[in-house]
Amino acid sequence: MYLEQINKANDVKQLDADCLMPLAAEIREFLIDRLSETGGHLASNLGVVELTIALHRCLDFPKDKLIWDVGHQSYTHKLLTGRREEFATLRSFGGISGFPKRAESDCDSFDTGHSSTSISAGLGFAYARDLSGGDERIVSVIGDGALTGGLAFEAINNLASLKKNFVVILNDNNMSISENVGGLSAQLSRMRTSGWYTGLKEGVHRSLEKIPFYGEVIDATVHRTKSGIKQLVIPGMLFEELGMMYLGPVDGHNIPAMERIFEEAFAYAGPVLVHVLTKKGRGFLPAERHPSRFHGAEPFDKESGLPLKHKGTTYTDIFSTVMLKMGERDEKVVAITAAMMDGTGLKRFHNRFPDRFLDVGLAEEHAVTFSAALALSGLHPVFAVYSSFLQRAYDELLHDVCLQKLPVVFCIDRAGLVGADGDTHQGIFDLSYLYSMPNMTVLAPKNKWELSDMVKFAVAYDKGPVAIRYPKGEAYTGLEEHRPDIAYGKAEVIEEEGDVLLFALGSMVKTAAEVREKLSKKDISCAVVNARFAKPLDEKYLKQAAERYRMIVTMEENVRSGGFGEHINSVLIENDYKGKLINIAIPDKFVPHGDIAILKKKCGIDAASVARKIKKAYV
Amino acid sequence: MYLEQINKANDVKQLDADCLMPLAAEIREFLIDRLSETGGHLASNLGVVELTIALHRCLDFPKDKLIWDVGHQSYTHKLLTGRREEFATLRSFGGISGFPKRAESDCDSFDTGHSSTSISAGLGFAYARDLSGGDERIVSVIGDGALTGGLAFEAINNLASLKKNFVVILNDNNMSISENVGGLSAQLSRMRTSGWYTGLKEGVHRSLEKIPFYGEVIDATVHRTKSGIKQLVIPGMLFEELGMMYLGPVDGHNIPAMERIFEEAFAYAGPVLVHVLTKKGRGFLPAERHPSRFHGAEPFDKESGLPLKHKGTTYTDIFSTVMLKMGERDEKVVAITAAMMDGTGLKRFHNRFPDRFLDVGLAEEHAVTFSAALALSGLHPVFAVYSSFLQRAYDELLHDVCLQKLPVVFCIDRAGLVGADGDTHQGIFDLSYLYSMPNMTVLAPKNKWELSDMVKFAVAYDKGPVAIRYPKGEAYTGLEEHRPDIAYGKAEVIEEEGDVLLFALGSMVKTAAEVREKLSKKDISCAVVNARFAKPLDEKYLKQAAERYRMIVTMEENVRSGGFGEHINSVLIENDYKGKLINIAIPDKFVPHGDIAILKKKCGIDAASVARKIKKAYV
Repeated sequence: MYLEQINKANDVKQLDADCLMPLAAEIREFLIDRLSETGGHLASNLGVVELTIALHRCLDFPKDKLIWDVGHQSYTHKLLTGRREEFATLRSFGGISGFPKRAESDCDSFDTGHSSTSISAGLGFAYARDLSGGDERIVSVIGDGALTGGLAFEAINNLASLKKNFVVILNDNNMSISENVGGLSAQLSRMRTSGWYTGLKEGVHRSLEKIPFYGEVIDATVHRTKSGIKQLVIPGMLFEELGMMYLGPVDGHNIPAMERIFEEAFAYAGPVLVHVLTKKGRGFLPAERHPSRFHGAEPFDKESGLPLKHKGTTYTDIFSTVMLKMGERDEKVVAITAAMMDGTGLKRFHNRFPDRFLDVGLAEEHAVTFSAALALSGLHPVFAVYSSFLQRAYDELLHDVCLQKLPVVFCIDRAGLVGADGDTHQGIFDLSYLYSMPNMTVLAPKNKWELSDMVKFAVAYDKGPVAIRYPKGEAYTGLEEHRPDIAYGKAEVIEEEGDVLLFALGSMVKTAAEVREKLSKKDISCAVVNARFAKPLDEKYLKQAAERYRMIVTMEENVRSGGFGEHINSVLIENDYKGKLINIAIPDKFVPHGDIAILKKKCGIDAASVARKIKKAYV
Repeated sequence: MYLEQINKANDVKQLDADCLMPLAAEIREFLIDRLSETGGHLASNLGVVELTIALHRCLDFPKDKLIWDVGHQSYTHKLLTGRREEFATLRSFGGISGFPKRAESDCDSFDTGHSSTSISAGLGFAYARDLSGGDERIVSVIGDGALTGGLAFEAINNLASLKKNFVVILNDNNMSISENVGGLSAQLSRMRTSGWYTGLKEGVHRSLEKIPFYGEVIDATVHRTKSGIKQLVIPGMLFEELGMMYLGPVDGHNIPAMERIFEEAFAYAGPVLVHVLTKKGRGFLPAERHPSRFHGAEPFDKESGLPLKHKGTTYTDIFSTVMLKMGERDEKVVAITAAMMDGTGLKRFHNRFPDRFLDVGLAEEHAVTFSAALALSGLHPVFAVYSSFLQRAYDELLHDVCLQKLPVVFCIDRAGLVGADGDTHQGIFDLSYLYSMPNMTVLAPKNKWELSDMVKFAVAYDKGPVAIRYPKGEAYTGLEEHRPDIAYGKAEVIEEEGDVLLFALGSMVKTAAEVREKLSKKDISCAVVNARFAKPLDEKYLKQAAERYRMIVTMEENVRSGGFGEHINSVLIENDYKGKLINIAIPDKFVPHGDIAILKKKCGIDAASVARKIKKAYV
C-alpha cells in the first residue's frame, strides 16, 4: 500500500516513478470508499488524481503555492499533505472541509469555494514574491468552466502585462458542473481535436486564395507542414495572443508526461498556461457516465452508484415543476442559468423549451445584465441561481436591473444554511444585499405550495424585479391548510392569538410553529405570522402588531446585519413600539461546514434556542 | 448651420454626405462651447463625433438598439436625437443626464454608467429579437478600457455560442480613463501597428526553424506575403478565436469608411466586432494632450483649457499625500487601482514607487482578489477605488478578503453623493454592503486630518480588512482642534453637553456641527459625537448614551437600508433605550444627478432639514 506511506507533504516525491500509477489507483479506491459514506465532490476529484500527484512531484510544500480554483477538487491534495486520517470527518461539523482551508494546513495557500479566483490570487502571490526576491513556484489550477468567469479573464489580462513567472494549469474536462458552454469552450474543443486546426487552415486558405501567386505557394506549404505547425504554433493562440505561453494539450492521466511539461513550464520566464485534458469521474463508471450527478454527491452505493437515501421532494423540485407550467402557460417566460442547469432544477424546462432556455456559463454577472435586456424587450426572464453565487452580480442587480426597475425574476436557491459545503456556500447574505437595493421586491416561501404560488406571482408581476429565496433540501409540507393568495407586500397571519408575536420569514415559519408549540407548554402563547415579503415589509400589519403584542420576535435564516430583523426594528421604532424586541438571525460571523441542524443550533436559530431566548426575555 | 437642421432622431440621414464633416465640426464646437460652461465628459465625446454620426446614418431609431457602454460618450447621440436645446441643463438637477437614460428618450435603449455592460445587454436584445422574429439592428459601442472588465468577457464568451446577429463596435482610443493596461490592450496595439504582425511572424519563424526544409520554404513565403496576410488573416484573431467575425481596423474619424464597414457588419449573419480607431479629445488641443484631465471636466476656459475655478484641497489630494508618506515609511505598502490612477490620487505614488504600484485595468474584482494574495504574502495592499465601482467586487470582498480576514486596506473615494454623474455613480450603498460582511472594519473621517490619520491607522492594522470611505470634493477643514488618536472601535466625543445626541459618521459630522449651531438658537442643545467607526460600532459609548440622552439622532450619507442608523437602532434596542430615535439617511431610492447641495436637501440630509426634523420631534 503506497498511500499509507504518505503521511505528510512531499512524501510522494520519495516514491519511485513506477509506484505512482498504483498510488493513483489506491487514491481512487480510497475516495470512492470514503465518499460513498460521507458524500462529497466525487467526479471532479476522481478526474484530478494523476494531475495532483504530478504537481506534488514538482512542488515543494509549503514553500511553493498551489491554488485550487473553486477548490472542491482538492481531496487528493489533502491526502498528499497529511490529512488522510481526517477523511472520515470530511464536510462534517468540526471535521475537514471539502475545500482548501489555510486553517487546516500550511499547504493550502488560498481559501477557495467560488469559481474563477485562482489566477488573481496566484498573480498576487507572484507579484509579492518578485517584490521580495523569492523564488517559490506558483501554480493555479483552473477548470475550463471556471475559466468562463469574468474574474478569470480580468486576471489573465493583467497577468500578460505583468509578465510574472507563474503557471496556470487549465484542467480541461469539457465540463463546468453541467456541460460547458460559450466561445471559449468551443475554442478549447477545437484545440482538443484536429478539427480546430482544419477549420483555421481553411480560413487561411480562403484568405490566401485572394492573393495572386503567393497565396497558392503558401497554401501548399501550409498543407505540407500541417502537423508541424499544429504542434508548434497553432493551439493556444488565444492564450498566446493574450500574452501567455501555451503548452499542451497533455494527457491529464499520464503522470510522467505531466511532470515533464510542468518542469518545462516552470523553466519558462513568464506566464505559462498548461492545457491538461482530464476526465471527470475517471475510474468510477457511474461517475464517468453521470458526472453532473456526482458533482456534489450524497452517500451512495459503491456498486450501483445510486444514492443510499431516497431524497424527499426539495424546493428545487417544486421550482422545477412550476417552471414547466409557467413555460407552457406563457411563451414569454425564458429561463436562465449560470452553469447550474441541474442544480437549480431547470433541466426539465431546458428539455421542453430549449429555445427559451439559456445557460450562459459560470457568469452570474452576465446572466443578470442579459436578463435585464430580456425584460426590457417584453420577455419574462427567470434567473435561477444559488444565493452565494448571486453575490457575484451585486452591481449588475443594482445598476442594471433595479435602477431601470426591470421585471426580472430571481429564483434564489440554497438561501440560508447549506450545510456540508460550508462558509463559502452559505446563502446567508442575500437578504442583506437585496434590502439595500431600491425597487427590489424580496419574498420567501414558508412551504412547498407557497414557493409555487410565489413563482407564479413573481412572473406575473411587471412593475420591477422580484427575488424569491428558498433553502436547500427537502421542502416543508406542513401548514398546508394556510394558502391564501399572495398579495403584494402583505404578510400572512397564521395564528393571531398570543402575547408574543413570532414574525418569521421563509424557512423560519416552520421553526416559529415549533416554537409556538414548545412555549405553549410553558404557558407562553405565541402568535405566528408569515412575513412572505421581506421587502417591502408589511408596515401596516407591523403598526397594528406594535400596538397589540408585548413582545415581537423576528426570525430569519440570514445574517442579522442588514437583514429582515433590523429592518423590522426600524419600522417598529418609527411606530414608537415600546415592547420587547428580539431578532433571531445568524450572528455576524462566517458559518463553517456541518450538518444543517447542528449549524442552526450553533447559530441559535433552531426552535429550542429560540424558545429559550423568548422564555428568558419573557419573565 | 447643419446642426440646427437636426431636431429629431434620423434627421441626420437627410443630410448629403458632404455635409457630414462640417456637421461634425459644428458638433465639436457646440460641445466645447457648452461643456466649457457646464463641465462634463469632454474628451470621450470629442472622440466619437464621427463614429456617432456614422452609426446614426446606418440605424433607424427608435426601432434599432444602440447601447453605449459606460455611456458618458453619448452626447453626440443626444444631439442627434432631439436633445440639443436641453444641453444647457446637462448634468444639473432636473436637466438632462450625462449618461443614456430611457426616461429621456426612446432612442436610449439601455441605461448605463458603469463599464462593460453593453455586450450583455445587446446580446439580451438580440436573443429577444430572434425569439419574437424581429429584424432590428443591435449595436453595442464599447471602449478598449471597458473591454477589460470581466463582465464584457463573459458576454463575448456567451455571444459566440449564441451566434446572434449583433454588432459590437470596439471604440479603441488606447485609453480607458487613464492609459490602458493588460494583455488585451497589448494585443490591440499590435493590431493597430505592423509591430504586432512582426512579432507574430518572428514567433512563427522561430518555430518553423525547427522543421527541416519546410520551415525555410514557408518562412520565406510568409515574409513575402506579409502585407497580404496581415490584412486578411491576422488582425482580430483573438476575437475570431472567440467566435466573432472581426472587421477593421477602420479610421474612426472617416464617416464614409465607417458607414461602409458598418453595413458590411450588419449584412453578416452572426456576431461581428468592428474595430474603430478614435482619438480621445479630438479637435480640442488641450483635451488631445491631456485626455485624462478632460475625462470628467469642470467648467474651463475655451482658449487655455484651464479650469475656471480653482479647486480647494480635496479628500483625494489628502489621500494622495498620505500615500506618498506611507510609501516612504513602509516598503511593504503597495497601491492598487482599477484604471483610476488620476481620479483616486495615486499618480504621485505611481511616479515615486512604480514597482509598488499596479493598475489592473477596469477590473475591480481582480483588484480585490489580487490584493488578498498580496496581504497573505505579508505586503500592505491599499486598493483605492470609487464607492460605486467597488460594488462590482462585492463577492470578492466577502469571499476572498473577509472570509480569510486579510489586512487589505480599501480607500473608498466618492462615498456619498457625487452630484453631476448621477444615480449610477452615487456612492450611497457601500456602508450597507460592507456592514453585512463579517470581519470587516469600516471608518469614515470627519475632516482632512482625520482621513490622514485613518489611512495611517488602517495600514498599520494587521488583524483584518479595513475600509475608509470619504466623499467627493473639497475636504472639510473645520474641527481642526479635535484630533485625538484613532483607537479601534472608539467614537470621538466632540461636544458632550446637550439632551439630544447627534451621532454622526464621516461627512455628516460637519453637518452635525451646523445642526447644533442652528438648534442652539432654538434652545435645543445638542451633543455631537463623531462615530469614526461605522463597523464595529462603539457599543460601549452607545450604551452610555442610551442612558444619558432623551433623543438620539444618527446621521450618515448612505441609504438608510442596512446602513449606520439601522445598526445603531439595533444596538439601542438591545440596551432598552426608551428615548426618541431618528435616522438621518438617504431614503430607499436612487438619487439622480444635480448639485450635491440640492441633492442633500432633496434627500433630507442637509443641516436645515435635519434641524427641522429634530425640532419637530423634540416637542
